[in-house]
Amino acid sequence: MGLTIGVDIGGTKIAAGVVDEEGSILETVTVPTPSTPEGVVDAIAAAVRDVSTNHAVEAVGIGAAGYVDDKRATVLFAPNINWRHEALKDKVEQRVGLPVVVENDANAAAWGEYRFGAGQGHNDVICITLGTGLGGGIIIGNKLRRGRFGVAGEFGHIRMVPDGLLCGCGSQGCWEQYASGRALVRYAKQRAVAQPENAELLLSLGDGTPAAIEGHHISQAARGGDPVAIDSFRELARWAGAGLADLASLFDPSAFIVGGGVSDEGELVLDPIRKSFRRWLVGGQYRPHAQVLAARLGGKAGLVGAADLARQG
Amino acid sequence: MGLTIGVDIGGTKIAAGVVDEEGSILETVTVPTPSTPEGVVDAIAAAVRDVSTNHAVEAVGIGAAGYVDDKRATVLFAPNINWRHEALKDKVEQRVGLPVVVENDANAAAWGEYRFGAGQGHNDVICITLGTGLGGGIIIGNKLRRGRFGVAGEFGHIRMVPDGLLCGCGSQGCWEQYASGRALVRYAKQRAVAQPENAELLLSLGDGTPAAIEGHHISQAARGGDPVAIDSFRELARWAGAGLADLASLFDPSAFIVGGGVSDEGELVLDPIRKSFRRWLVGGQYRPHAQVLAARLGGKAGLVGAADLARQG
Amino acid sequence: MGLTIGVDIGGTKIAAGVVDEEGSILETVTVPTPSTPEGVVDAIAAAVRDVSTNHAVEAVGIGAAGYVDDKRATVLFAPNINWRHEALKDKVEQRVGLPVVVENDANAAAWGEYRFGAGQGHNDVICITLGTGLGGGIIIGNKLRRGRFGVAGEFGHIRMVPDGLLCGCGSQGCWEQYASGRALVRYAKQRAVAQPENAELLLSLGDGTPAAIEGHHISQAARGGDPVAIDSFRELARWAGAGLADLASLFDPSAFIVGGGVSDEGELVLDPIRKSFRRWLVGGQYRPHAQVLAARLGGKAGLVGAADLARQG
Amino acid sequence: MGLTIGVDIGGTKIAAGVVDEEGSILETVTVPTPSTPEGVVDAIAAAVRDVSTNHAVEAVGIGAAGYVDDKRATVLFAPNINWRHEALKDKVEQRVGLPVVVENDANAAAWGEYRFGAGQGHNDVICITLGTGLGGGIIIGNKLRRGRFGVAGEFGHIRMVPDGLLCGCGSQGCWEQYASGRALVRYAKQRAVAQPENAELLLSLGDGTPAAIEGHHISQAARGGDPVAIDSFRELARWAGAGLADLASLFDPSAFIVGGGVSDEGELVLDPIRKSFRRWLVGGQYRPHAQVLAARLGGKAGLVGAADLARQG
Repeated sequence: MGLTIGVDIGGTKIAAGVVDEEGSILETVTVPTPSTPEGVVDAIAAAVRDVSTNHAVEAVGIGAAGYVDDKRATVLFAPNINWRHEALKDKVEQRVGLPVVVENDANAAAWGEYRFGAGQGHNDVICITLGTGLGGGIIIGNKLRRGRFGVAGEFGHIRMVPDGLLCGCGSQGCWEQYASGRALVRYAKQRAVAQPENAELLLSLGDGTPAAIEGHHISQAARGGDPVAIDSFRELARWAGAGLADLASLFDPSAFIVGGGVSDEGELVLDPIRKSFRRWLVGGQYRPHAQVLAARLGGKAGLVGAADLARQG
Repeated sequence: MGLTIGVDIGGTKIAAGVVDEEGSILETVTVPTPSTPEGVVDAIAAAVRDVSTNHAVEAVGIGAAGYVDDKRATVLFAPNINWRHEALKDKVEQRVGLPVVVENDANAAAWGEYRFGAGQGHNDVICITLGTGLGGGIIIGNKLRRGRFGVAGEFGHIRMVPDGLLCGCGSQGCWEQYASGRALVRYAKQRAVAQPENAELLLSLGDGTPAAIEGHHISQAARGGDPVAIDSFRELARWAGAGLADLASLFDPSAFIVGGGVSDEGELVLDPIRKSFRRWLVGGQYRPHAQVLAARLGGKAGLVGAADLARQG
Repeated sequence: MGLTIGVDIGGTKIAAGVVDEEGSILETVTVPTPSTPEGVVDAIAAAVRDVSTNHAVEAVGIGAAGYVDDKRATVLFAPNINWRHEALKDKVEQRVGLPVVVENDANAAAWGEYRFGAGQGHNDVICITLGTGLGGGIIIGNKLRRGRFGVAGEFGHIRMVPDGLLCGCGSQGCWEQYASGRALVRYAKQRAVAQPENAELLLSLGDGTPAAIEGHHISQAARGGDPVAIDSFRELARWAGAGLADLASLFDPSAFIVGGGVSDEGELVLDPIRKSFRRWLVGGQYRPHAQVLAARLGGKAGLVGAADLARQG
Repeated sequence: MGLTIGVDIGGTKIAAGVVDEEGSILETVTVPTPSTPEGVVDAIAAAVRDVSTNHAVEAVGIGAAGYVDDKRATVLFAPNINWRHEALKDKVEQRVGLPVVVENDANAAAWGEYRFGAGQGHNDVICITLGTGLGGGIIIGNKLRRGRFGVAGEFGHIRMVPDGLLCGCGSQGCWEQYASGRALVRYAKQRAVAQPENAELLLSLGDGTPAAIEGHHISQAARGGDPVAIDSFRELARWAGAGLADLASLFDPSAFIVGGGVSDEGELVLDPIRKSFRRWLVGGQYRPHAQVLAARLGGKAGLVGAADLARQG
């Protein structure tokens, strides 16, 4: 199969792109995410038609946050869009006249990294996506593993702390409450309240109050040596690495790939994650260690991965 | 391939048996576990020769506690026997003249249940073995998944409680410290100290002191209605079910199989595990639920599974 | 000194009452709580003048949520009213022409119970108030202990769970997130989502959805045998009792008094709290146990206590 | 009253000393701790007679680990010596012919620091002793507060981590499992296993293996810049400071005094404890902060405090 289209549905925008067999993006279009379920379907169809005008495309892969069923056809539940048992595959196929595959967005991103990014050459790879929340994808034996019902790889909701922080999912102590962009901001705010004298640079990037701290302030301040910002990254890394150690006990992959916006900071966050991973890895003296790699495709991993999954059929 | 031999190496005894293609055991022998690594190899070889006298066997599968490498040849580390990088496959092959496959004992038991026990008809099954500790095995897409380095499925050592109980592995808060036979005894002892008036039956089965409580006392007392014994099973089930909920987020299997000595109590422990699993399952309203099944092969699962893995080659 | 006035400032209403030396209330008035700090001062003054018309009163005691300074004059910080370093004593004295004592509301309630309620005859008593949140008061050697800066007894904010639930105070894992009326409602909602078949009565008291569950539903349903309601009280009691065990290690009082709206349920909540307390009490075999008593003054404890503290001067 | 004798009963040795009204020690004697309860009584009596030969002493104060009853006469339970309801006061009085007061050793040390050490000038002081375990003492209103039954101030056994580390007391998650000399050694060993390249100096002070690490190695290595040693102190400080923040919510003292062997390291441990305390102090923006002070009397605090308590009668 030749060219396919990948669609990445985010909370604020939808990106569609034509992708070739090497994972290169030939053309893209981005539109705002409509507020109604039906509007989203229309927007996907329009974007697909838009980018396919100049290309002979053969299939469409859609990555969306939420539970996608085992047939890769229906979104059982989405956190951001009001989809409940939404037959997305059928609806889009009817509108665009191409075969459609639906996939969880973190799964799509994991597949993208496995095929064209940091995971190349590995057969067994676990990807985590540290964005606003924490998503994941599982490649075992060179296949994306979706589980019996399609909802495997929901790493963000394993329980790291019994009776811990409330999560949007209704449970408590979920990993994404401790290792995600949202967690990073919470760490920074709490620390800036308690020790403002160690957060001078960080606070100066907003309006001077802890409440105004945003994620990009923390990155900038950490690079500038701000103690609170650095410590906030370290706290996030502490939890991220501890979770990877659990995943090593479970999956024993040859590599972990860390993607998502938080990972854009590179070694600032990767290095402490590796240290924490080693700190908590059970039986580390007696077994080969998985590598902990930075993702390479950045924000395009989901789009590229979805397109490639559509190509695989 | 026709008949194969399965060997199950336990802390106190070694069992070997001839197993046919249906998973039936034709003949078994049991010997005490020697105290030296070399003695264990000799005992395995002797047991294999013993049971193969009357049968035309074609291969040997050995299940052993510990890390087994990706080639299923070397025990990287064993908790009970002083094996470090022990070339078990080569040593036994030299002595018995048959092809040998080495496997982690919980993996072997999982495979046995998948092939001939509670897992029949499922393609994606997660097994946990609640014995003295907690072991596990992963079947995805009808294959035993061993990880890149052979040590996948070490469920007992995922961290359930940050800064929690010390574990023999050197880490803290490991699942097997909260859900295992050893944990059950601890729960009962702690409760019997605090509220002896609710443990009269339980205490009467030993010498009357909490320190003398053993696992089989708790089972017997729970069946007799002893409040502390029942509550101890419930506490174990609370942790077991919470962990299964995490595994559902990760693997999304169609079924969990609960085996090991603790599961011999049947619904006494299975029913509260199911309730706890449902209590903690993330997104339970929006997704199909995995079944939680009792293992069917009892203590023979490891032997039968090891034999079948040897048959598969 | 003869008659004094007690004032209890709640989030929704202000109650003032004339109290005699026996702790009997001779007359009360209740007004809605104004929304501005100055409005609250005016309302207090008006209520005091109102109830003092027919009585020769000699002093006023005011109980308010928040930090009250060591001089019992200034509210350093209040959670519900926008008071920061509010000179409440001076302002009210100027308006009513009587000596005023300001006290933390849970301290006032503790003092009321110690003097005229469940604490009579004890020299060393710890009170906890399970209302919307969790407050406390310390009587040691027959004196209310306020700490060096006036803010002792903030039991609700000791950390029960590291990295636990966010608290309105900005910290995490505070006791009041696990043992309070608000926690009780959360327990019931979570359980009703996971196991609606065990919450039929509970759900029938609202609109049928977990989201509509209120505290009084849980009490009513628990008395009617609803499993989820009963289990929710038990969960609250588990945390309340564990915290009392910590307080016993710290203060070693002769009695704990449990007050606040949650305790109005009597033995429904007291009995499991006692069991949990015994379960977690350190060294329980080797030491006398404190009693765990239900408060006797109900919602009047704060008003009566504040009046009596004003009498003591 | 003039001179009194203080006796400090440790796990390995018993120290007795003559102390004057200024807290100065005029003469001391040290003997090994006998292994039998009766032997300990004999040794105390002999030591008292020994140091009183040259001095006109009027009373004896004995500090011992364990629960001492409200009459300061009987040791209800001791962790190191097999005392159960041991009438220590009567037995020693019969042998030495002087009035005897028995006190918990951490209480005695707290009193010593309050009277002659870091606590001078404070009315409300909380002391913690970071030795092998963690002990405490409470001074409120210039009096040592012992609780109704004599066992107040058992700080080491408040629960810091639900379902946490097993404690010798039979409970789980006790503070002393996370903040004590024993905890410090555990932290260092765990870290040295996981990251030996960061523990080169630390490991070089023993036999090169993590198992051989002792407390004094960690101090020496930390002063030499060893990363694992420094991080181990920081981890201890994290837990110590968090606990002090809880104690501030409860007691609101003007000062905390940190004593015991661990505190001999001075600012190496005090500085991170202060930072952690500030990090976790609830409502820190709205209230005056207690000081966190290093103890001044070192290992003599218990002996001096016991002598002074005997003087007070």
